[in-house]
Amino acid sequence: MVYVGVDLGGTNIAVGVVSEAGSILSEAGAKTLADRPYQAIVRDMAELVRRAVAKARLTMDDVRSVGVGIPGVAFADTGVVYNCTNLGWINVPLRAELKKYIDKPIFIDNDANAAALAESVAGASAGCKSSILLTLGTGVGGGFIYNGHLYRGGNGCGFEPGHMTIRMDGVPCTCGKKGCFESYASASAIIRELSNSEAPSLKAFIAENGGKPTARMLFDAVRQGNTAAQDILDNYVKALAVGIGSLVTILRPQIVLLGGGVSAAGDLLYRPLRAMMKDTVFGYDVIGCPEIVPATLGNDAGIIGAAMLGK
Amino acid sequence: MVYVGVDLGGTNIAVGVVSEAGSILSEAGAKTLADRPYQAIVRDMAELVRRAVAKARLTMDDVRSVGVGIPGVAFADTGVVYNCTNLGWINVPLRAELKKYIDKPIFIDNDANAAALAESVAGASAGCKSSILLTLGTGVGGGFIYNGHLYRGGNGCGFEPGHMTIRMDGVPCTCGKKGCFESYASASAIIRELSNSEAPSLKAFIAENGGKPTARMLFDAVRQGNTAAQDILDNYVKALAVGIGSLVTILRPQIVLLGGGVSAAGDLLYRPLRAMMKDTVFGYDVIGCPEIVPATLGNDAGIIGAAMLGK
Repeated sequence: MVYVGVDLGGTNIAVGVVSEAGSILSEAGAKTLADRPYQAIVRDMAELVRRAVAKARLTMDDVRSVGVGIPGVAFADTGVVYNCTNLGWINVPLRAELKKYIDKPIFIDNDANAAALAESVAGASAGCKSSILLTLGTGVGGGFIYNGHLYRGGNGCGFEPGHMTIRMDGVPCTCGKKGCFESYASASAIIRELSNSEAPSLKAFIAENGGKPTARMLFDAVRQGNTAAQDILDNYVKALAVGIGSLVTILRPQIVLLGGGVSAAGDLLYRPLRAMMKDTVFGYDVIGCPEIVPATLGNDAGIIGAAMLGK
Repeated sequence: MVYVGVDLGGTNIAVGVVSEAGSILSEAGAKTLADRPYQAIVRDMAELVRRAVAKARLTMDDVRSVGVGIPGVAFADTGVVYNCTNLGWINVPLRAELKKYIDKPIFIDNDANAAALAESVAGASAGCKSSILLTLGTGVGGGFIYNGHLYRGGNGCGFEPGHMTIRMDGVPCTCGKKGCFESYASASAIIRELSNSEAPSLKAFIAENGGKPTARMLFDAVRQGNTAAQDILDNYVKALAVGIGSLVTILRPQIVLLGGGVSAAGDLLYRPLRAMMKDTVFGYDVIGCPEIVPATLGNDAGIIGAAMLGK
């Protein structure tokens, strides 16, 4: 039997047929064209599922389940997407709609949850019973695997590490709270700090590179010895260490993975981050800190994780 | 079959025989006399176990297991007490020592973990599959029940909510970190703020009441309309709301219980706390916040929870 995973993004729909072991056997994709009614998007998703299955020279009889990872908040229990900003979806009954086309068990979850699951099956946390994946992008998302399963609190919608508070009374977050982890540890936080910087050397660097700050630009500037950029990076790493430290103190996973664009920054990020964990993890001297490593599946994590939701 | 629970404190050892349903059938107790070698204390514990069992008119054949709750950090896997400040214990092989006297399965855990388990079996969170207990005392301890079982990260020593960071660069904590939840939400934090207050009305109130600030004194002063005390309480409640908000955002339990001395403060505490959760829980408008209620088992939680470790 195989599993089908649907990685639903604001720009693309990517569908894949995935083996028990978490390998992608075939893929199909199309533009999301997110301004259409959700019914049209779901119809395309169903069509892509059929196409991917045919491409793998299989039939729907070989498919055990279909999983969908969405870039927003989903209620895993009911299969309803509560909120998906990129798609403009609010309270969309995704499972019920997809059921009209596909008579298989259907699982819906947040894409960061799906990615965490994928990494635990076929990626950097394979073999670990408990792991946390943090995706450092526009926000800070995450998934938590405990005893080999996705952690789900209360109504199936738990683990939002980006919105724990790391600085009471801190900067306002898009969520309405203040001092959230993601307000300091997302790529957006880096961009904000670059934009706000008054340092002439940094302003010049940004101007030379097209004028629009990106997270990558920070690391490039640091590599060139820009001290204002180094200050921003130091603060960024510290906030990341504080947030990861709290998660480790509360949950003590075996490993912590970082995904998203920022996670590819290499030693510039990981070396100071790992060094700082002794100041942010409770009981570091005795219990130490789990390894912090980059996620390895990249974009494939979306399809693989969505597929593995049904495993 | 019955379970025996040992609540090991810095002052007293309390032992009880506990039914499947979590009722205490008989008790025995003695002074800890903590300055003795641990071997002597463990011998007394074993003797108290036998005495409690006899008192219940049972024999050791009726006992399924013995559990011990300790006021410190224990490795549940190995049965070694890593650190127990009140007893001056460091790396004490408690399970191995107790095994010399009692040939039963023996479970060792932190006392707040045990209390959380007790409440979930026979207290305020009975019937809930997931719950968090926070004990607001000298520090902030806690236990987390997930799917009906005590949550244990990594090596069996997880969930230390008192040491997640709620204010990056905040006040130094006894643990060596900065801005820990317990530095703002413990009874000790209240005492610190009372001691530091320059408000003449509050200084006078403290002097009139013996000169030594206590957490209870804060609530008494607020009841008498002391505005400086009210300010301290407001800040305390806010910090408590931020910490609970983060825990809910990450773990989304079904219910949150408060234990320890401060938790008995009634409406003065719970009314503003519940009102403030809308500002600290991610997705409050949609998913709301779990109920926040006082723990109900009081001192019995130690014995019942320790006993239930073996269930």
